[in-house]
Amino acid sequence: MSTLSPNAKGYILTLSCPNRPGIVAALSQTLYEAGANITEAQQYDDVGSGSFFMRIMFDIVKGKTTEAELRALVDVMAGQFGMEYRLNCQSYRPKVVIMVSKFDHCLVDLLYRWRIGELPIEPVGIIANHPEETYKDIDFYGIPFYHLPITKETKVEQEARILSVVDGSGADLVVLARYMQILSNDMAAALSGRCINIHHSFLPGFKGARPYHQAYERGVKLIGATAHYVTRDLDEGPIIEQDVERISHADSPDDLIRKGRDIERRVLARAVRYHIEMRTIMNGNKTIVFVS
Amino acid sequence: MSTLSPNAKGYILTLSCPNRPGIVAALSQTLYEAGANITEAQQYDDVGSGSFFMRIMFDIVKGKTTEAELRALVDVMAGQFGMEYRLNCQSYRPKVVIMVSKFDHCLVDLLYRWRIGELPIEPVGIIANHPEETYKDIDFYGIPFYHLPITKETKVEQEARILSVVDGSGADLVVLARYMQILSNDMAAALSGRCINIHHSFLPGFKGARPYHQAYERGVKLIGATAHYVTRDLDEGPIIEQDVERISHADSPDDLIRKGRDIERRVLARAVRYHIEMRTIMNGNKTIVFVS
Amino acid sequence: MSTLSPNAKGYILTLSCPNRPGIVAALSQTLYEAGANITEAQQYDDVGSGSFFMRIMFDIVKGKTTEAELRALVDVMAGQFGMEYRLNCQSYRPKVVIMVSKFDHCLVDLLYRWRIGELPIEPVGIIANHPEETYKDIDFYGIPFYHLPITKETKVEQEARILSVVDGSGADLVVLARYMQILSNDMAAALSGRCINIHHSFLPGFKGARPYHQAYERGVKLIGATAHYVTRDLDEGPIIEQDVERISHADSPDDLIRKGRDIERRVLARAVRYHIEMRTIMNGNKTIVFVS
Amino acid sequence: MSTLSPNAKGYILTLSCPNRPGIVAALSQTLYEAGANITEAQQYDDVGSGSFFMRIMFDIVKGKTTEAELRALVDVMAGQFGMEYRLNCQSYRPKVVIMVSKFDHCLVDLLYRWRIGELPIEPVGIIANHPEETYKDIDFYGIPFYHLPITKETKVEQEARILSVVDGSGADLVVLARYMQILSNDMAAALSGRCINIHHSFLPGFKGARPYHQAYERGVKLIGATAHYVTRDLDEGPIIEQDVERISHADSPDDLIRKGRDIERRVLARAVRYHIEMRTIMNGNKTIVFVS
Repeated sequence: MSTLSPNAKGYILTLSCPNRPGIVAALSQTLYEAGANITEAQQYDDVGSGSFFMRIMFDIVKGKTTEAELRALVDVMAGQFGMEYRLNCQSYRPKVVIMVSKFDHCLVDLLYRWRIGELPIEPVGIIANHPEETYKDIDFYGIPFYHLPITKETKVEQEARILSVVDGSGADLVVLARYMQILSNDMAAALSGRCINIHHSFLPGFKGARPYHQAYERGVKLIGATAHYVTRDLDEGPIIEQDVERISHADSPDDLIRKGRDIERRVLARAVRYHIEMRTIMNGNKTIVFVS
Repeated sequence: MSTLSPNAKGYILTLSCPNRPGIVAALSQTLYEAGANITEAQQYDDVGSGSFFMRIMFDIVKGKTTEAELRALVDVMAGQFGMEYRLNCQSYRPKVVIMVSKFDHCLVDLLYRWRIGELPIEPVGIIANHPEETYKDIDFYGIPFYHLPITKETKVEQEARILSVVDGSGADLVVLARYMQILSNDMAAALSGRCINIHHSFLPGFKGARPYHQAYERGVKLIGATAHYVTRDLDEGPIIEQDVERISHADSPDDLIRKGRDIERRVLARAVRYHIEMRTIMNGNKTIVFVS
Repeated sequence: MSTLSPNAKGYILTLSCPNRPGIVAALSQTLYEAGANITEAQQYDDVGSGSFFMRIMFDIVKGKTTEAELRALVDVMAGQFGMEYRLNCQSYRPKVVIMVSKFDHCLVDLLYRWRIGELPIEPVGIIANHPEETYKDIDFYGIPFYHLPITKETKVEQEARILSVVDGSGADLVVLARYMQILSNDMAAALSGRCINIHHSFLPGFKGARPYHQAYERGVKLIGATAHYVTRDLDEGPIIEQDVERISHADSPDDLIRKGRDIERRVLARAVRYHIEMRTIMNGNKTIVFVS
Repeated sequence: MSTLSPNAKGYILTLSCPNRPGIVAALSQTLYEAGANITEAQQYDDVGSGSFFMRIMFDIVKGKTTEAELRALVDVMAGQFGMEYRLNCQSYRPKVVIMVSKFDHCLVDLLYRWRIGELPIEPVGIIANHPEETYKDIDFYGIPFYHLPITKETKVEQEARILSVVDGSGADLVVLARYMQILSNDMAAALSGRCINIHHSFLPGFKGARPYHQAYERGVKLIGATAHYVTRDLDEGPIIEQDVERISHADSPDDLIRKGRDIERRVLARAVRYHIEMRTIMNGNKTIVFVS
């Protein structure tokens, strides 16, 4: 949707703060004076918590306000309104680490979307608890691969290694692309807000292991998948995206697993896209998703 | 879809029995000899339980085998194969009792579908725990109305009255059209297999009270409704039909309730249609639904 | 979603103008100075046409700026930026005329949504080309009913009468709720932008008469409905909302008609809701729909 | 869903014939006497054309009736009832040629589903009108690749080469996986009934070139994709499967193309699956699809 003129620089700004009159007026005045042309804007008042959330896309003609000057201007406003904010260039390609176990359909799908330019990310690492030969059919294009198997005994040290890879690579985002190890509380906390998991059920139904078998046993008529931010509470993180497909009594657990792969792929890809386009803001145990 | 010639009589037969070779051959031979023309047939082998399920629609030219003779023939087969079966004329209009509380959208919807001939039922009673004036905007067309309010103290006797109305009316089916009283175990058992409830969530998520508020609190991205047969276990009955709609962070609980009404209406109407067209067969805690 | 405090007055403003920098800044500054608290805002830049569109909801504490003063302020801005705008109180209930032919499912549905308070409208007239007894099962609650049958010979004068009813009633919106007469070009032009039609196909597929039969003949696997603004070009008006449902080879044209009723009802109801909440802005032959 | 015992051989039989009483009885008797255990069966009476269609899955214990004997038995019935039929082993893996142009998402998707065992096919050739280096990111696993570019001048001879590859490879099915060349009438006729195309619109809307741009211009609110058998009439072939996704006014043509890729992939994959599981039977310009 980018329609940026070649001599302008595009930005995305997301912010949250306690709600009070005048935020939008002050912000749009500040941006106007900085020479910004707002191209997209969405806001949300959470009446329950009294919080205000906003996402703004804008362009600034080159030669006018620099990025550093812009940050200084936003910092002033942030101080004034008690804002937390994130500001990025629209051209920024987030660094992403992908974690995977045996099933590779989400990994393959993300790499494909990256390869054809659909997902503007920079993959900086693939971490698996299976050895590299498990993925011998996949072209990693030189993305570093880390085999970090986990047992009960090695969990603490291996998670430390994972975090070291994540932080060492400068990753902005970790994607659990059907990574079937349960993260420790410490690990989950360390990745909180920058880690997306795909769970293969329509949460809150069928938490935990083997959700398609649970769905089969319960006799539901639709199955689904859920992409959510990782937090301490397993399968309780803020939901970013969900989708479902119809099944029938004649579908076996294997049919559900097969149909589920399609749902998981598209739900995870959408969630990652929303995140890297800065369309998501965590709001307690929920996620605000500004789709246009 | 009926394409019955005027001088033929249409039947629907559903059956279940232990699976073994030769059921279909014997059945189709029997029906052929009875002069039946099979117009629709579906079957399902439940490999787990070793059970066989089938639904057959067929016509018999008038003057050939009578309904009594037909039943005798099917009885022989049923004995031979250990079958349970149901046989009805396609023209049979099941007698239905509808139960309702304050919210009338499912009731109004069912009555409308009946009025225009979409749902071939015969409503024989409306039971409510609110007084008739609550429904003053609804034309009951002379369907008997029963005000049977329930308190903790009167539950036993009022449920007995409800059962008495149901059985006295000869009802084939009881529809809980947003009837917000929890049935006692005895009542649920007494109606088992002939009572459909609409629950306003995508089960197994958000059982119990105020599911839309639960959904709002959890931050899901789709809400749903579930029609199921009533059994002893509240919200655990065999699911007949489910559907969902997309919501966003900006939807309040009232928005969910509003969007949910549309889902509830169509899910319940589909489930009732499947039941009266004898497309459903309960299979333990699941429902086989033979949709064409 | 209204969370208006009792001593504030809520407004909705929609506007369009040639795009240029500073619109949002000027507008939010103006509103801020008027004492407005913005609760919802959406915007869209149509790069192709160079037009800018916006919808803003805001509250003003009673005792501050009056509605007249507010309009004066917006008028100034409108002059400055070449804006067209609409400004309404959030509590305004648009006057609506509903037109219908033989099939009453959309009419009944709209009246139900109005009766339970879901659709905040004021129905001021029902116009039909069938006599009132056709609708004897429907409670019109005293809404004036006009029987205006149309033949080739009477079309001009009857359309004049329809327009006279519409204008005489002060209607803001005319809803063609399965009104099966083709409007003349003059009539369509007279109602342009304030008349919503429901077409019983997924446009642009199956324009014209008997779309479900067309769909059956073509063998599509999904059927749909389309709500659109009425313009001179029949079935070519700006689309507001569409939806679909799955069908199979086994569905007869009557099955499609039955399944279609459910789609038509919800698509039309959504479109009317979007319109009366001022979420829609016509943009040439398209409709911008600001859903939250 | 296969639950075949190791000492049984599974078959799929599809058939069509003029409808008359006794077909099912004769067929099930024949199969019963051949020692077959029917595991799945579906039928459809097309009242309009008076044709009868059926799909049956069954097992025969090894050592009983052989495949040759079985074919002889079915041949007798076919003669008796004027049947056309197809009989295959359930373990048969159809040979498939995939044709592709520049966009490789459907090709990559099909190869992935084949690689993980989801699609039980044997790819025997990939034909492209672009050179092999266009697909350098794709592992063809030794599947023969044919670069057969087409110009107006070379069309006749290149189509002859394509047919020669198809027939030489013994392909049961040709999949046009976003192959952007229009087949000549002769070519389409030669492949009729054994060639599936994916069209990137919800047919019959937006036939021909650049359908996403057409959809953008028309302002529809859902976009779709259609998989159909190839026949002489371009974009008019019998539809096998369709699906849609929601879009908004804010989506650019590029957004539609991106969202469309997901729809195209799953619609084509489902259609291919239906075909190779022999769930489809062409019925004039429609397709019967027996989904369970």
